Amino acid sequence: MERTIDLASKAILQIAEREGYPTIWDRFAAQMPQCGFGELGTCCRICLQGPCRVRGAQLGACGATADAIVARNLARAIAAGTAAHSGHAKHLAHTLLRSAQGQAADYPIKDEAKLKAVAARLGIPADGKAADELAREVAQVALADFSEKQTPVAWAATNVTQGRVETFLKHGVMPTGIDSAISEVMHRTTYGCDADPVNLLLGGIKCALADFAGMHMATDLADILFSTPKPVVTQANLGVLKPDAVNIAVHGHNPVLSDVIAQVAHELDEEARAVGAPGGVNLVGICCTGNEVLMRHGIPSATHSVSQELAVLTGALDAIVVEYQCIMPGLATVAECYHTRLITTMPITKIPGATHIEFSEEKARETALKIIRQGIEAFKQRDPKKVNIPPHRSTAVAGFSTEAIVEALSQVNAEDPLKPLIDNIVNGNVQGVCLFAGCNNVRVPQDSSFIAMAKELASKNVLLLATGCGAGAFARHGLLTGDATSEYAGDGLKAVLTAVGQAAGLGGPLPLVLHMGSCVDNTRAADVAVAVANKLGVDLDRLPVVASAPEATTEKAIAIGTWAVAAGLPTHVGVVPPVLGGPAVAKVLTEDVKSLFGGYFIVETDPVMAAEKLVGAIEERRRGLAI
Amino acid sequence: MERTIDLASKAILQIAEREGYPTIWDRFAAQMPQCGFGELGTCCRICLQGPCRVRGAQLGACGATADAIVARNLARAIAAGTAAHSGHAKHLAHTLLRSAQGQAADYPIKDEAKLKAVAARLGIPADGKAADELAREVAQVALADFSEKQTPVAWAATNVTQGRVETFLKHGVMPTGIDSAISEVMHRTTYGCDADPVNLLLGGIKCALADFAGMHMATDLADILFSTPKPVVTQANLGVLKPDAVNIAVHGHNPVLSDVIAQVAHELDEEARAVGAPGGVNLVGICCTGNEVLMRHGIPSATHSVSQELAVLTGALDAIVVEYQCIMPGLATVAECYHTRLITTMPITKIPGATHIEFSEEKARETALKIIRQGIEAFKQRDPKKVNIPPHRSTAVAGFSTEAIVEALSQVNAEDPLKPLIDNIVNGNVQGVCLFAGCNNVRVPQDSSFIAMAKELASKNVLLLATGCGAGAFARHGLLTGDATSEYAGDGLKAVLTAVGQAAGLGGPLPLVLHMGSCVDNTRAADVAVAVANKLGVDLDRLPVVASAPEATTEKAIAIGTWAVAAGLPTHVGVVPPVLGGPAVAKVLTEDVKSLFGGYFIVETDPVMAAEKLVGAIEERRRGLAI
Repeated sequence: MERTIDLASKAILQIAEREGYPTIWDRFAAQMPQCGFGELGTCCRICLQGPCRVRGAQLGACGATADAIVARNLARAIAAGTAAHSGHAKHLAHTLLRSAQGQAADYPIKDEAKLKAVAARLGIPADGKAADELAREVAQVALADFSEKQTPVAWAATNVTQGRVETFLKHGVMPTGIDSAISEVMHRTTYGCDADPVNLLLGGIKCALADFAGMHMATDLADILFSTPKPVVTQANLGVLKPDAVNIAVHGHNPVLSDVIAQVAHELDEEARAVGAPGGVNLVGICCTGNEVLMRHGIPSATHSVSQELAVLTGALDAIVVEYQCIMPGLATVAECYHTRLITTMPITKIPGATHIEFSEEKARETALKIIRQGIEAFKQRDPKKVNIPPHRSTAVAGFSTEAIVEALSQVNAEDPLKPLIDNIVNGNVQGVCLFAGCNNVRVPQDSSFIAMAKELASKNVLLLATGCGAGAFARHGLLTGDATSEYAGDGLKAVLTAVGQAAGLGGPLPLVLHMGSCVDNTRAADVAVAVANKLGVDLDRLPVVASAPEATTEKAIAIGTWAVAAGLPTHVGVVPPVLGGPAVAKVLTEDVKSLFGGYFIVETDPVMAAEKLVGAIEERRRGLAI
Repeated sequence: MERTIDLASKAILQIAEREGYPTIWDRFAAQMPQCGFGELGTCCRICLQGPCRVRGAQLGACGATADAIVARNLARAIAAGTAAHSGHAKHLAHTLLRSAQGQAADYPIKDEAKLKAVAARLGIPADGKAADELAREVAQVALADFSEKQTPVAWAATNVTQGRVETFLKHGVMPTGIDSAISEVMHRTTYGCDADPVNLLLGGIKCALADFAGMHMATDLADILFSTPKPVVTQANLGVLKPDAVNIAVHGHNPVLSDVIAQVAHELDEEARAVGAPGGVNLVGICCTGNEVLMRHGIPSATHSVSQELAVLTGALDAIVVEYQCIMPGLATVAECYHTRLITTMPITKIPGATHIEFSEEKARETALKIIRQGIEAFKQRDPKKVNIPPHRSTAVAGFSTEAIVEALSQVNAEDPLKPLIDNIVNGNVQGVCLFAGCNNVRVPQDSSFIAMAKELASKNVLLLATGCGAGAFARHGLLTGDATSEYAGDGLKAVLTAVGQAAGLGGPLPLVLHMGSCVDNTRAADVAVAVANKLGVDLDRLPVVASAPEATTEKAIAIGTWAVAAGLPTHVGVVPPVLGGPAVAKVLTEDVKSLFGGYFIVETDPVMAAEKLVGAIEERRRGLAI
């Protein structure tokens, strides 16, 4: 199987092969064949009588059916994904609170307009309050959302349509606390608790809605602290590394550290020059913390997800600074083959072989500078003979927060910004909207499904949004450009993107895919859908809006997909999740759930077929709206 | 392999075999051979690139080592166990709050002395406050313990020695929220986060201390609501079922329902007689909810854990009412072979094939009566030809809460109740103390390890405490009696138990094993140890106190074992936990952790060897104290 369709990755993989440096593709190949029970989801390890593995009507030792085992495993994956996103959000809530209390000087409130908008949505009166006071109240409401309450999680109940709120309450899936929803899943999935697959799946959905809340909170608070993204032009792919600069990559997910590094990096340009790097400090991003600084500072993106080790294998990366999530421990192994310093910064994410420099908000700038200096130090050991920076890099226009999209649309209709979008959906120029999200997955030739699906959908006049590593894939392949719009968009879509792009002063069409942020920012796309639904007076489950994670990997992606379904979206997954061993579970997720929430999963590994199915789902929704 | 050493279970298993009814032993046999990777803990399913299975130095696709995989899996098991115990505690905290607010008439405060004692420990002034007011404050502190705070979890920090508090803070494992500790584990164990096995294990310990807090809270609040257990004499084993009565079993863990059922059961004796059951309603217990009503109401115990299906196979059980934890879904299958009604009551625990009658505190009595009437209805369908009640039952003296033990000791020395115990430890009459806890496990001939170890340790003058299914095993085999003391205790121990028993007016020795409650009540034993440590002025890690779970099964047992180790106790596990595939993890748990916390795991499947190792650990501690 081809490993990647990305030319830069291909080039570096040749070096890896030549030098015998192991990468994820090698280790994955060594795993073949994988365990069939694990793949089907029918392996149970929740008690010391196991592991039990069941087939068909066989039962686990305790009597659990395949469906119960599959549903429990899935619910736990959702809980883990929720814990990751909401851990990130909680981190930011603490930062915001410290900022508001004057205990975090490096974190001023950067976006008061967003602060006021978030406060308004939460029902916190802003009148006459200083920003710090309002921020404190918002942070307190945020932190309260983690504990179990008598009322719904605020961030879940105030960021969806009224129809969704009613649906969630009706089916008993409205979360009343984020951490408590996670605990509840862990409790109900332990030995001798919930054995009813449907009840377990509803529990999983409840937790996934807590995930939605945590994600939305993370985006809101990051925008308040670091500003809401606006369109920005940058570059993407390994070619953004510079032979004459100290190259430092920020990797992980939370901007709490990376944004500060982005703010201060150039303060040390002189120090970098002093050690022989005339290009100074060249900060680049990997994965979603890369997306965060790309969206807000235009920091170029080196790579994402499955190819993260390849950034080290260029021999030009002097330091790679990580916080948490999606950081392959394999990085430490390849870093040992080079001069690259792998620096961990969070107490909950350490890696054997890495240097640990613990980060704290109180000493953010100081720590950021210390970390950059590690890269400068390491640069001295860089071996120019081992440097191989692939020439590949693409221009990428990013920064399309919900606010930025509305702002662009308002250049067409200042009175009623959503009208041009809705009119074009109604007249069919835009057939529907697809949000691409999720990771790369070593099972899929890197980027291949993203690119094939995007081209197919664009040609069918589907407006494309993207986040996370999906957005990274599009960035690498030049799809975040107006040129791509000219090349790949169907006539209707092209006309709309061109009209908006020109009205917004871009001198050409909007990019074929609108980069909305990191994976935690998927709720930005939900916000657009909610705004359209509210304006049309219909619920989300009637809109021609779909979602896709063609190369999904993490438990976070499972949580996101689940809330997308609960939000009413037909949701494609391009790798087979471990549910097929539970036929009832698979049927509920792909069929029956539609009658409860409107959304449902579409599992399809072939990208062209997947695009066809999504177009079919969009057409069904259009017929439902009689448009 | 022999399935059980319990005569009643043996008798029913013959019927199961004759009739072809499947039990856990059959399903377990059908699982052979089990997956070696799962047994070693080296199977990773936390992302959609897996499952990965590693051997030796092999790495998962992402680069995770065997040790990282093992440590992550173990940390998640601890999180699940913590979620179960603390979900139980949170449930009671809400009940207490509703009680205090006058919203739960069926839950008056039954034990004001305990309420005051708990409040005092938490630093809540009681002076002049009505019970309801104090209960409200205690419930609020309890609920606050679930959320992340700037301060330690109150129930963790106030129920251990000062030395332990310092140790926990020093190693960064003092939890600051129960639910947040669970979420933190789920976050740090997701794809691309913590890859450092030692850091992961410390995270697991932090969560396990949240488990300790949740368990202690559950016990405290149950005592406040339902009274603190006092010595009580009852019967145990399947022979407690009555051919002429409506037999109803309560099964699960939380007394919030079962205690009310115990309170009202006899109100329906007449209704039972009216349908042809002259014996009225005969309430019996299974697993730890059985222990709860045994401790407080003397309700006989039918059976526990691995043999729960056998209660149905007597043909004499009319209803089995369950809430959550350790309820085998296989119960539904065997219930279908008989007239037995399986009734689920909690939203987070449903079982296909069961009748669901949702329980709420607001309608506790009403629901309890409705449930009992289900049993009376079912009795009409009982087929006398299918009834086989084994004649086996043993007398059991139970009810040894910490308070009850201190009360018994105070009959020897009213001024200084702990003095007789400490004096006898110092003079060697009592060599040490062993807490038996945990489940039965289908891998072990039922009860065999418990009984063999207890006899061995008692002969060596080790004072034995027990909880949960371990206490159940001892109850079935007659070890919760003074006669067993006469038969099995070494001379020193026998003298002490006899002296205290006679002083306490029992007319004979205390039982060989003191039944301290359900599995959630393990902290009662910790309280005894803390009191002794404080009186001696040494920390827990110097006491000749050990713990053992010879037949452990659940993730809860893993959490308990982990906090026992952190509390400083040498802790025996009699089944091999899935850690051997991570040599560094196994070494940390059995050796290195001793230098941090004093406690450590002893993994030994042979019960006689295990007893020897525990005696060795006790002797080492005695030498350390120069006694």
